[in-house]
Amino acid sequence: MKKIGVAILGLGVVGGGTYQTLVDHHDFYLQTQQTDITVEAVLDRDKNRLKELGVPEEKIANSIEEVLADPNVDIVVETIGGIGVAKDFVCAALHEGKTVVTSNKELICKYSHELEKIAKRNHCGLYYEASCVGGVPIIRTLLDGVQANKIQRMMGIVNGTTNYILTKMTYEGADYAQTLKDAQRLGYAEANPTADVDGYDSMYKLSILSSMAFHTKIPYTKIFREGISKIDTRDIAYGRELGYTLKLLAIGKNEGKGIEVRVHPTLIPTSHPLASVNDAFNAVYLTGDAVDDVMLYGRGAGAFPTASAVVSDVIYAATHSEIKYSTFKNTATAESGVKFITDFESAYYIRLFVDDYVGVLAKITGMFAKCGVSIVEIAQRPKDEFGADNERVPLIIITHKTKESGVRNTVSKINASGLATVEAVIRVEA
Amino acid sequence: MKKIGVAILGLGVVGGGTYQTLVDHHDFYLQTQQTDITVEAVLDRDKNRLKELGVPEEKIANSIEEVLADPNVDIVVETIGGIGVAKDFVCAALHEGKTVVTSNKELICKYSHELEKIAKRNHCGLYYEASCVGGVPIIRTLLDGVQANKIQRMMGIVNGTTNYILTKMTYEGADYAQTLKDAQRLGYAEANPTADVDGYDSMYKLSILSSMAFHTKIPYTKIFREGISKIDTRDIAYGRELGYTLKLLAIGKNEGKGIEVRVHPTLIPTSHPLASVNDAFNAVYLTGDAVDDVMLYGRGAGAFPTASAVVSDVIYAATHSEIKYSTFKNTATAESGVKFITDFESAYYIRLFVDDYVGVLAKITGMFAKCGVSIVEIAQRPKDEFGADNERVPLIIITHKTKESGVRNTVSKINASGLATVEAVIRVEA
Repeated sequence: MKKIGVAILGLGVVGGGTYQTLVDHHDFYLQTQQTDITVEAVLDRDKNRLKELGVPEEKIANSIEEVLADPNVDIVVETIGGIGVAKDFVCAALHEGKTVVTSNKELICKYSHELEKIAKRNHCGLYYEASCVGGVPIIRTLLDGVQANKIQRMMGIVNGTTNYILTKMTYEGADYAQTLKDAQRLGYAEANPTADVDGYDSMYKLSILSSMAFHTKIPYTKIFREGISKIDTRDIAYGRELGYTLKLLAIGKNEGKGIEVRVHPTLIPTSHPLASVNDAFNAVYLTGDAVDDVMLYGRGAGAFPTASAVVSDVIYAATHSEIKYSTFKNTATAESGVKFITDFESAYYIRLFVDDYVGVLAKITGMFAKCGVSIVEIAQRPKDEFGADNERVPLIIITHKTKESGVRNTVSKINASGLATVEAVIRVEA
Repeated sequence: MKKIGVAILGLGVVGGGTYQTLVDHHDFYLQTQQTDITVEAVLDRDKNRLKELGVPEEKIANSIEEVLADPNVDIVVETIGGIGVAKDFVCAALHEGKTVVTSNKELICKYSHELEKIAKRNHCGLYYEASCVGGVPIIRTLLDGVQANKIQRMMGIVNGTTNYILTKMTYEGADYAQTLKDAQRLGYAEANPTADVDGYDSMYKLSILSSMAFHTKIPYTKIFREGISKIDTRDIAYGRELGYTLKLLAIGKNEGKGIEVRVHPTLIPTSHPLASVNDAFNAVYLTGDAVDDVMLYGRGAGAFPTASAVVSDVIYAATHSEIKYSTFKNTATAESGVKFITDFESAYYIRLFVDDYVGVLAKITGMFAKCGVSIVEIAQRPKDEFGADNERVPLIIITHKTKESGVRNTVSKINASGLATVEAVIRVEA
């Protein structure tokens, strides 16, 4: 019977879930994987947490040095997060020849190349399925399930907090500030919600996933990012009336002319499979040149769904340890020579307040035409529907696919004209 | 640069798609996988097909012996189908130490254990992602993505033909016979549709997938099977009115008391993610004890989606060939000792025609009570809605979760009573 020892660094939500999953399933893995996978050591400063999880005294390590010196530890799980001590510990473990499994998206986004080099040099593995979209095996799918394809497009709902907030705003009509407050009270959003609501979390995940999908390192600094904090509930409602649902999407495209990566609130047709991914559920929708459309759906966060990904990586590493260097076959090469599209194309939803007098519509549509932006649909809404501005009339315009720069020009022209103010600009994907 | 030679046996729909994908993507794989994957030989009796695909003369083999004697062939792709010559060729290839990639569900369902033993003895691999659900990487997910979980339930729409037919019946209201005829005309159904419409295809796939999910060989003979050929469009319509959508589901459950495997038409809540999987799309919905719910969605058939799975397996085998025996880690052990639940529990939709007179309802509900079947909902429909039986009134009954045997008893009692006839019995899952 093969025996594999595991150490867990950091027993927070994910680390705790990982500990419990490994302990509770020990005999199950013995039976199904013919491998004895045992937690040999855990490291966490919080003694109460260790007690709460019922970690036996003899498994509690006092330092990273103690963990790495333990010859029974084959695999080190890093669930600390961030790029401070987590990075130091991961590097130390790899230098020691221990295979590392991590759930740390920021670490993998920023340092995967460096870490993979260290792993390769030391003949050990580096796995990070849990860094993106919790329990959904999206990295395994990209690397080992659809790697025959040229991936043309990826659209993902990859952050649970923002999807929870947008779902509430959509189906309960509450405004952003109130919904965020409720989400914080219920533990769905952090006290400082910036990482989620401003799209940083989605950005890190898009960097990791698009690097794999497009076989080239996509630095997060190349990603266009816009959060949900300025979303007005009325735009969700108007969008619904026109057949669209609002989601915070992480989008990657590689359709031949260059790579385009962006995170922003997006209106998608309500009939699109992503439109019905609600609450804390996440999903990634891929389009490949052979497989066509594929969607993976599941819980993108939480102790046990994320532990599912961590422990599945542990089992893979444990049962494939006959390969010296059995890391993910990450085919993303360095970024040199990649062409990024910054002035991307999209359809747009634009809401204006206009003075309600004859002729203004012709002038406004004229400004769109002058900037080369072609209109699909115009809907004038009743003045008092939301009661916010009783003097002026809401006007919704949906454009054809056009360049971002063209829309920005149009918006500037309209705002400068004094005839109307642009209140919202939201990208639309089909 | 690593060089891997591939032979393709059988250039039908999937084999042809595989050939074209490998040829068209040769340079792409060279670049992204640092591996030269080249088609070295193809074997097919149909010379016109070989010409149609533009196979160069020197790649055309005349016999399996010629293919297997070629030292440049490392991986043999079997896309012939069935268990005649396909089985002989696969066995011969494995005996020769060639890794095999197959899309053949019947072969894998019936002989995976035997074939895996031969592969192991000869230090070569056996991969079969393409045998189930086309381009959707469901096998990779079960083995390498969610293997940390005890899988409690699996519900899949795994046959494109029947899902196409049921989608048309649901949204266009046409009857079964007419829809099947249209599907045959459009090439979505075979001239002899039995394998699809009677659920054999779904049964083979459920046998393969549930064996992996539950870590024990599930012989297809243990699977309860009922097809869609007796489905009446009015039951789809009545179901919709009550909030349910009809799908042909492959269901596997392992909730502690034994294993339950069945393929049958099923009403599921219209809000369930599987209810909106339409036309030729397929999906598998899994529930694990750590990951909770996960769904994979995509095209379950077709030349290129299925080739995506075949070629992804070829790439995996090619890039992991440092492992002597790099097959799927199929953890399904022999079936001895497994407890199968045959008298399974489900909720039920039952449609009766009843004589429309006072007191009959009390007598019928009394028969349900006597058999221990508890009723959730009764809906009497107008007599003439479908015009089929103008004398008697349609009555729809939805039961609580109950044993199949109880429902069968109730149905016999009602039919014997002469008060009503049971016209449809459809299982309901939530």
